[in-house]
Amino acid sequence: MIVAFSVTPLGVGEGVAEPVARAVRVVRESGLPNRTDAMFTTIEGEWDEVMDVIKRAVDAVAEVAPRVSLVLKADLRAGVTDAMTTKLESLERHLP
Amino acid sequence: MIVAFSVTPLGVGEGVAEPVARAVRVVRESGLPNRTDAMFTTIEGEWDEVMDVIKRAVDAVAEVAPRVSLVLKADLRAGVTDAMTTKLESLERHLP
Amino acid sequence: MIVAFSVTPLGVGEGVAEPVARAVRVVRESGLPNRTDAMFTTIEGEWDEVMDVIKRAVDAVAEVAPRVSLVLKADLRAGVTDAMTTKLESLERHLP
Amino acid sequence: MIVAFSVTPLGVGEGVAEPVARAVRVVRESGLPNRTDAMFTTIEGEWDEVMDVIKRAVDAVAEVAPRVSLVLKADLRAGVTDAMTTKLESLERHLP
Repeated sequence: MIVAFSVTPLGVGEGVAEPVARAVRVVRESGLPNRTDAMFTTIEGEWDEVMDVIKRAVDAVAEVAPRVSLVLKADLRAGVTDAMTTKLESLERHLP
Repeated sequence: MIVAFSVTPLGVGEGVAEPVARAVRVVRESGLPNRTDAMFTTIEGEWDEVMDVIKRAVDAVAEVAPRVSLVLKADLRAGVTDAMTTKLESLERHLP
Repeated sequence: MIVAFSVTPLGVGEGVAEPVARAVRVVRESGLPNRTDAMFTTIEGEWDEVMDVIKRAVDAVAEVAPRVSLVLKADLRAGVTDAMTTKLESLERHLP
Repeated sequence: MIVAFSVTPLGVGEGVAEPVARAVRVVRESGLPNRTDAMFTTIEGEWDEVMDVIKRAVDAVAEVAPRVSLVLKADLRAGVTDAMTTKLESLERHLP
């Protein structure tokens, strides 16, 4: 499955780059395909491995923030792999 | 933590009540505090137990749909319990 | 359409009930069908009226917070009205 | 503000690339800074211009689907511009 998730620390002020970087570091060290943009980190793998990474990412933020908000969107499709790439290619084929 | 989640089956037509009911049934049988409204099912518990319920809810929908979209928002706050009730009470105290 | 939305103020500490209450107040004064639970406020109406309410709700929070995060999920279905009630009833018919 | 949004057409089968491409086309023709990955399209601008683009993107999908689900996450911060770039740069500065 592909999962895009975003972790927001509360109670640490309005600048949250350092706490959020802790989450991204966990994802990058996971070995799973991933990319981070201004709003979400996207990661691909099986449910258990993806959710384990997200749990550890949330925990890494919770070490420095009293409250954490997590938003997640997942796309689950049996038998589809390498979806982070192929899904976008499929979309682009329909665009000029 | 409190989690609100929504499961959307794709590839089964525009009426999705029956597949979605499969997910709600898993939640209600879980024994965790929960409520369902028109857009989300909210559930409260520890990470592992909540995520296990959501995984089984998604699986129940995936049995009848070739593709499933999951959207989830979680509020994690160490040491806070019964948050589904107290959070709303705290909010209402600030309203006329 | 039905929209569930959540407004999170950043830079105001971990307790956010008072700023969030400002958003809920805007919704309740809008006259549109709405309900608020621990995670989301759900509101029903046409795109322009719903989005106008959400904009004013976000603005009310931004008056007291330097940064605001908005999460929103909408269900748009042409010709369906009173969906906040009927959608849930349709779901419950499939449950024991 | 920066907004990441995702439009899911229901009632058109499990392959949704063509309907979703209609939404992305609206965004790309808007002239606003944007990028699309496997899960979300991110766009930056003022509330009214961004929401107008998203409304037209949703409408373009609704022309070919009886039901549309919209998920959106926005980050609103007064006085911050070019956030799609600077936010990610700020994050990367905290990473090895």
